[in-house]
Amino acid sequence: MTSPLRSTLDFLLHDWLQADALTTRARFADHSRETFDAVLDTCERIARDRYAPFNRQVDTEEPRTEPDGAGGLRVVLPRCTHDARLAYAGSGMLAAAQDYELGGMQLPYLVEAVANTFFGVASVSIGSNLLTTGNANAILAHGTPLQQQVFAANEFNGRWAGTMCLSEPQAGSSLSDIATRAQPDEAPALAADGSASWNQDPLGPRYRLTGSKMWISAGEHELTENIVHLVLAKIPGPDGRPVAGVKGISLFIVPKRLVDADGRLTGERNDIALAGLNHKLGWRGTTNTLLNFGEGAYPVRGAAGAIGYLVGQPGDGLRCMFHMMNEARIAIGMAATALGLAGYYASLDYAKARLQGRPVGAGGKDAAAPQVPLIEHADIKRMLLAQKSYCEGALALNLYCARLVDDGRTGDAPAAAEAKLLLELLTPIAKSWPSENCLEANSLAIQIHGGYGYTRDFPVEQYWRDNRLNMIHEGTHGIQAMDLLGRKVLMQEGKALRLLAARVQATAAKARQIEALAPHAAQLSDALAQVAQATQAAWSTGKPAEALANAVPYLQAFGHVVLAWVWLDLALATLRGDASLKIAASAGRMGACRYFYHYELPRIAAWLAPVARRDATCAALPADAF
Amino acid sequence: MTSPLRSTLDFLLHDWLQADALTTRARFADHSRETFDAVLDTCERIARDRYAPFNRQVDTEEPRTEPDGAGGLRVVLPRCTHDARLAYAGSGMLAAAQDYELGGMQLPYLVEAVANTFFGVASVSIGSNLLTTGNANAILAHGTPLQQQVFAANEFNGRWAGTMCLSEPQAGSSLSDIATRAQPDEAPALAADGSASWNQDPLGPRYRLTGSKMWISAGEHELTENIVHLVLAKIPGPDGRPVAGVKGISLFIVPKRLVDADGRLTGERNDIALAGLNHKLGWRGTTNTLLNFGEGAYPVRGAAGAIGYLVGQPGDGLRCMFHMMNEARIAIGMAATALGLAGYYASLDYAKARLQGRPVGAGGKDAAAPQVPLIEHADIKRMLLAQKSYCEGALALNLYCARLVDDGRTGDAPAAAEAKLLLELLTPIAKSWPSENCLEANSLAIQIHGGYGYTRDFPVEQYWRDNRLNMIHEGTHGIQAMDLLGRKVLMQEGKALRLLAARVQATAAKARQIEALAPHAAQLSDALAQVAQATQAAWSTGKPAEALANAVPYLQAFGHVVLAWVWLDLALATLRGDASLKIAASAGRMGACRYFYHYELPRIAAWLAPVARRDATCAALPADAF
Repeated sequence: MTSPLRSTLDFLLHDWLQADALTTRARFADHSRETFDAVLDTCERIARDRYAPFNRQVDTEEPRTEPDGAGGLRVVLPRCTHDARLAYAGSGMLAAAQDYELGGMQLPYLVEAVANTFFGVASVSIGSNLLTTGNANAILAHGTPLQQQVFAANEFNGRWAGTMCLSEPQAGSSLSDIATRAQPDEAPALAADGSASWNQDPLGPRYRLTGSKMWISAGEHELTENIVHLVLAKIPGPDGRPVAGVKGISLFIVPKRLVDADGRLTGERNDIALAGLNHKLGWRGTTNTLLNFGEGAYPVRGAAGAIGYLVGQPGDGLRCMFHMMNEARIAIGMAATALGLAGYYASLDYAKARLQGRPVGAGGKDAAAPQVPLIEHADIKRMLLAQKSYCEGALALNLYCARLVDDGRTGDAPAAAEAKLLLELLTPIAKSWPSENCLEANSLAIQIHGGYGYTRDFPVEQYWRDNRLNMIHEGTHGIQAMDLLGRKVLMQEGKALRLLAARVQATAAKARQIEALAPHAAQLSDALAQVAQATQAAWSTGKPAEALANAVPYLQAFGHVVLAWVWLDLALATLRGDASLKIAASAGRMGACRYFYHYELPRIAAWLAPVARRDATCAALPADAF
Repeated sequence: MTSPLRSTLDFLLHDWLQADALTTRARFADHSRETFDAVLDTCERIARDRYAPFNRQVDTEEPRTEPDGAGGLRVVLPRCTHDARLAYAGSGMLAAAQDYELGGMQLPYLVEAVANTFFGVASVSIGSNLLTTGNANAILAHGTPLQQQVFAANEFNGRWAGTMCLSEPQAGSSLSDIATRAQPDEAPALAADGSASWNQDPLGPRYRLTGSKMWISAGEHELTENIVHLVLAKIPGPDGRPVAGVKGISLFIVPKRLVDADGRLTGERNDIALAGLNHKLGWRGTTNTLLNFGEGAYPVRGAAGAIGYLVGQPGDGLRCMFHMMNEARIAIGMAATALGLAGYYASLDYAKARLQGRPVGAGGKDAAAPQVPLIEHADIKRMLLAQKSYCEGALALNLYCARLVDDGRTGDAPAAAEAKLLLELLTPIAKSWPSENCLEANSLAIQIHGGYGYTRDFPVEQYWRDNRLNMIHEGTHGIQAMDLLGRKVLMQEGKALRLLAARVQATAAKARQIEALAPHAAQLSDALAQVAQATQAAWSTGKPAEALANAVPYLQAFGHVVLAWVWLDLALATLRGDASLKIAASAGRMGACRYFYHYELPRIAAWLAPVARRDATCAALPADAF
């Protein structure tokens, strides 16, 4: 029997996003619905067998450390985490979207994203594969051919894993304040030819890095023979001092174990020490670490300092890393969505099975009547429909973004440019909206379970804990909001916003032709106008401090309008395929759309009002008044 | 130095609720601001020394069981829990509001509630004293003089603890479906005089109870020499079958250890077995149990069946228990509020101490400028102000309700009746509003901490976990909403609602005279009208299923209007005492009030629209469409 998740993914992938059309492009010419289905079948099976059964185990058996025999610490993970990693790498999914030459499958990114949903729903934290793929993609985009061949290729094939090292204990959102330093390494090159110059190392200009990096997911483990850290650090300027601000930041490949130009381990450990594990509220299947680079715990060739190879140009580090961060942000949105869906399905099953009370009838309740399943109560249905509208809507949005990735890479020139621009605008929404609303969905899933939902005997409390991270990592809600209102809606004189508006209006125009959807279409057009007006009003004085004082409510409203558009477009696709709503799932999607317009979209007025009047209530209150 | 919590409590107690006026009533004639202050000082000290330092310990050292040597299990709690209980009982706070004859202090309930806030903020779960007080109060209200003397008095003096046993594994919100049975006990009386009749036991008509009770807080422990369970059970009717619905439910005192009419332990263990502990997401300092009554694990006089004494009349159990549940609901609101405040203070301290980034200035950000404390960022202020408005507002509402308790008990006859009616209306709000909004406050407290907030090295993640329970226990959100829209706003033809409206309008009328508050006053009157209109529209067809289909959004909107009223009244009190806002805290309160009107109150439109149109989107969706 097809699972509800699979049915939803099939609908989104084929009926809505028309993945078949991608197979007409040269890059995907070998593919067909059959090959896509085969990938989905495989991933669904691995997720069911190797991920889902162990989701609670990785929560209770948190990563721990033990002495590594070399004076340092190593991380111990449960067996199931090793097995899950092996199964995932064995499936080829690490390189699903890569070129055949890199050992990839040349799958559309969209199909890769759909397939990865199964793993996220089964256990979001057992694997940390998304960082490996993102890391390797950043090296592909900005590294030298040899860096690609040595590092990226060995990440895609599963030999090594990757991390991203941005934050430091004293610098989280404020990356311009990172203190990690990179000094040119004047020691003899590690390359076989013994060349002596730091910038003639075949793996790239060679530096010694010193500093601490915080919140590093999968920063230390023994799941793979090596770990490729991508590290932001500052190269001192001519005066010996680091350049202020983000302009001084460069990007480095810093492998845990040193390797030669053929990708063989040299047997030397790099000077990277695990300083400690972070003990988190959730997401415990993924090791999270504080790493000390270059403190001398593992001297390399007699000297302290972690060996790192420059990627791209000096001072260009943040731009290079952002390539990875944008992918990571969409991946976070997908993770939040997957957790939301997991809670939705769990609470739906519970609501269908658990007998409790009687519905309110015409004359109130009849205690002599038999009990009914929870799902017969109106408020339980409300909580299920809210979850459905949040999580399936978020899934659709994230897959829409994945399709934009494909269009940006393989579409016609004008369409590709448009897709890239639209993706830039939607990225903060794709990251923030699920992380806020699918967290709320998880809370509703607990609520449906009643007291049982508050116990660790049911899975929903873990989903809720796991999901709370997503508003924080890869750029907090506040950072996403500044990105949206401070940068994305302004870029190219608002071109991205106009692009989005055109797509929204196109959907509304189609919906206006259909009686059942016409009121939604009018509501959507009005909502879009409210957002446009608030955007303009926020910037009308030209003062960033005034415009951005209420950036988060703006982000929330913007997200709700985007989701309303997504839901209306989903409703159109539903009616295209099943105009008379014969299939129960079709009625469900129409119900979720209606729910979103009746209960959710009206919330934007309260969010946008402070934005539009540049409300200074918060910003102007002195610190001592709190 | 006065803590921010103490300053806020002093303001609410004296400047706003005018506690001094209570001392003119005969019952409180011995009291004065000085005696109130002394109680607050003592509680603040005990909470600081015996509660706060151990809040994390009771989270990590969860209650566990070990064999009790009699074939059953007993509960092991950390030492600090015993110490906290001893200190609390030693303070006399268990009987703070009771008569002198009962060993009480005859404090106003308001002052008791204020004093208890310190414990909730320091550690909400280390103690479970609220149930003991509520249990004893229910016995005072409905028990015989001897039941009061034996059971209630020994709870107030700290010798014994109390529980409330309502839910069963198969019956949570649906109490009419409880399966626990009570059969008259025909065995010889336990009383010293050896009287043989079941209904001549001096402790009350004697029954044997059989059944399982779930979610019993402090259901088993060795903090006290005995535990007094108040248990709902059904007495079989003449046909030997339990009466259907809530009418068949009676209330029983079922002590863990049997006692004689003088309150001495007889040495006999009652037939109550600990079946297991519930392992919860949070609130782990309080043991939560599944208890088996009467399964024969501890036979009494050779027979299975737990000995219980009827309280009140047969079939009157739910009404008697509701006396306790209403107090418990306000106590839950206070607990949620205390957790919210704890998170607010933690994140405020963090925001003042942590340097991160630079504020957005006229020309954007200047990376060369020194870093600023988090609190200088507009969005951090927004998150702090939201917390302040939620938590201080919730505290004010709960203390207002506490004052209503006093007015109901000791006010003049007409004022007392009014206070009782108003309290009935406000109870679902006092319980539900903090449990939803102070949970959100805790989430914002995590967000302000960034990644650190997601670790167990900081307290905020625990507050958030602890607080998630409050929307569930003592009647879920859905139950509170049905109570409000299905019962409370309708009772006495809407008299309670009219009473509330009159108080809201009185506040608005005063605020209209003050320029700074006049816009809020207009907004409040309008909001009140919206609620009244939605109430009427919901019931306009007279069909409960239609009226109640959106009861939770109604509850949310109603709560926000009540809180807006509270905040406007707090603003009036602030200006009365400090018209020129010379004190920083005054400016803070005015800011929180403004925040609530600018950012929160406008949310009601989105909640009330589905209520007013009796939106059937959720209720009408068939179960198979999800």
